[in-house]
Amino acid sequence: MNEKIKELRKRLNEIDMDGMIVSNPINIRYLTGIDSDIEGVLLITNKENIYITDARYTERINRILTIDDEINPYDFKDLDPIDYENMFMFCNNVGFEENYVTYAKYKEYKQVYKINNLLETDGIIEAQRIIKEPDEINCIQRACKITDECFEHICKFIKVGMTEKEIAFEIEKYFKTHGAEDVSFDTIVASGSNSSMPHAVPTDRKIEEGDPITIDFGCKYNGYCSDMTRTIFVKYVPEGIKPIYNLVLKNQKLALDAIRENANTRILTMMVESDFKVNGFTLDHSLGHGVGLDIHERPFVGKKDYLLKENMIITDEPGIYLPGKFGVRIEDTVLVKKDNAIRLTESNKDYIIINNE
Amino acid sequence: MNEKIKELRKRLNEIDMDGMIVSNPINIRYLTGIDSDIEGVLLITNKENIYITDARYTERINRILTIDDEINPYDFKDLDPIDYENMFMFCNNVGFEENYVTYAKYKEYKQVYKINNLLETDGIIEAQRIIKEPDEINCIQRACKITDECFEHICKFIKVGMTEKEIAFEIEKYFKTHGAEDVSFDTIVASGSNSSMPHAVPTDRKIEEGDPITIDFGCKYNGYCSDMTRTIFVKYVPEGIKPIYNLVLKNQKLALDAIRENANTRILTMMVESDFKVNGFTLDHSLGHGVGLDIHERPFVGKKDYLLKENMIITDEPGIYLPGKFGVRIEDTVLVKKDNAIRLTESNKDYIIINNE
Repeated sequence: MNEKIKELRKRLNEIDMDGMIVSNPINIRYLTGIDSDIEGVLLITNKENIYITDARYTERINRILTIDDEINPYDFKDLDPIDYENMFMFCNNVGFEENYVTYAKYKEYKQVYKINNLLETDGIIEAQRIIKEPDEINCIQRACKITDECFEHICKFIKVGMTEKEIAFEIEKYFKTHGAEDVSFDTIVASGSNSSMPHAVPTDRKIEEGDPITIDFGCKYNGYCSDMTRTIFVKYVPEGIKPIYNLVLKNQKLALDAIRENANTRILTMMVESDFKVNGFTLDHSLGHGVGLDIHERPFVGKKDYLLKENMIITDEPGIYLPGKFGVRIEDTVLVKKDNAIRLTESNKDYIIINNE
Repeated sequence: MNEKIKELRKRLNEIDMDGMIVSNPINIRYLTGIDSDIEGVLLITNKENIYITDARYTERINRILTIDDEINPYDFKDLDPIDYENMFMFCNNVGFEENYVTYAKYKEYKQVYKINNLLETDGIIEAQRIIKEPDEINCIQRACKITDECFEHICKFIKVGMTEKEIAFEIEKYFKTHGAEDVSFDTIVASGSNSSMPHAVPTDRKIEEGDPITIDFGCKYNGYCSDMTRTIFVKYVPEGIKPIYNLVLKNQKLALDAIRENANTRILTMMVESDFKVNGFTLDHSLGHGVGLDIHERPFVGKKDYLLKENMIITDEPGIYLPGKFGVRIEDTVLVKKDNAIRLTESNKDYIIINNE
């Protein structure tokens, strides 16, 4: 049986569950390799692993699953009510994903599968996804490499007079034509005073000399995400921004130096927060988040005590925002190791000045 | 008060509900005009209409809501537990969207709002959305027009040697630079044998002479969707495909001729299904679906008895798929009228042969 399902079965066993209904397509992708755009449900029962889908996807699924997966695909049209009732026969406690499954679906599951104890699993698969396997690290590394290359391309592409939308569009085009399936989230290109909004949407604002431009972007490779931010400058770095850029960069690097197995996310956050405060600024969002099949996933690098472990992949992304004026954010995707952190996005973080004509 | 909320209140009253929690961003967009990327929840209470969001969105929401909407926006940071408890005070039955709200969220609502009877509403807003208002029809018509123009562009763009991904990308670029906000769903470009998969994802496969290419695409205008499919040919139409193309086209047109007020979706479906069967093929997916703020919404044009009504907007999209060989699908978005159907997508449906060098 595939290793990830084997591990899930072990974890289910530990919490006294005899089976689980896996509905979240990202969790199904994680466990089976079945792309998350395919509609279906994965049943972990005490007899077998079942994937119920419909005929539209049969061909694609047969290309993805191997005999070693030990997953039996069914077309829902071939199943009658008795088949469903039999699936979890002799299963006492069966888990479901309470943060993904709608209330209506929950009731349907109870009714269709005739499950007595359909129980919340509190993100059991999301917890398993926190520590990345070598093949997962490879995919994220690939996505980060494409992101670095895209950044190099975009620094040669940007010119005074272009709009934020044009730049965002070029980034997405680069990704899709250079080995990535897609962007991992809607690209942020925020120039001039727009950069003061952490979650800006690209506008028709034209790039001007002296603009800071915050670019927050990433792509997907084989389902896995990358995430990187740089604030770059057009023609020159305004004197007023320099101290803030330097402060953000200093803290981004300090955090990076401190990330390793058993580093506490609360301490990391407080370290940055207090240095910002000493200098008269605040840290308005969390320092980082896990990256994997989801662009935002566990662990969340925030103010709760939480110890990082080897082979977690997280972002390190402090930022300072002065409303109506400008903002600076610098972000890398990093791999947590025993004694240090390895940057997976490797682009330059010193002042980057765009001078293209 | 805005007319759509007034109508919803009337419908809630009919089923003996004193209030409702509206969580689905598409339903909130329908009722209030608040864009569906904005995070918030709309409360219909017996005293007022409340929209709870956070400070990030205040500026945008103030631009959207007018005094006539009679909706009071709140920043969730300004609310304490007592405020939540007061919102549905003296409300006995309060509805929620059981097909949108997760099981975990349902439990949270019960706890936070202290509601005794938190009840399923069985798609009360989705039912209201089925019949389109004139302003909604205008938006879908606009989206369909951009789609027709995009199709004309793409027929001049495609060349032998291009990949499916490149074509899909050009479609998305066209939409975003010609007045549409976005695609209404991930564009399907499926060439050669890939066209045998109804829900194919664009690949790096290069277009060859003699390929059929199924393109299923649409865009959003002011939140409203369009949906169109054509199967086109490169250089020539292979003889083996002709009878299947003709059969699909014949049935797409027959269905179109039959669509009008009081047409039964079951009869429409059976008509196509039986003609396919007589010729040795099957109809593997439903004949169509409603189109509006969602790309797939009510009514579903399937095998259940259901009478169409004036000003519904649906698709008409029969298809035949021969696994490993090829597939043909032809789809229009159409407006149901008293005595006929009006095509909103108007592109040519005869053999379209790409000859660009």
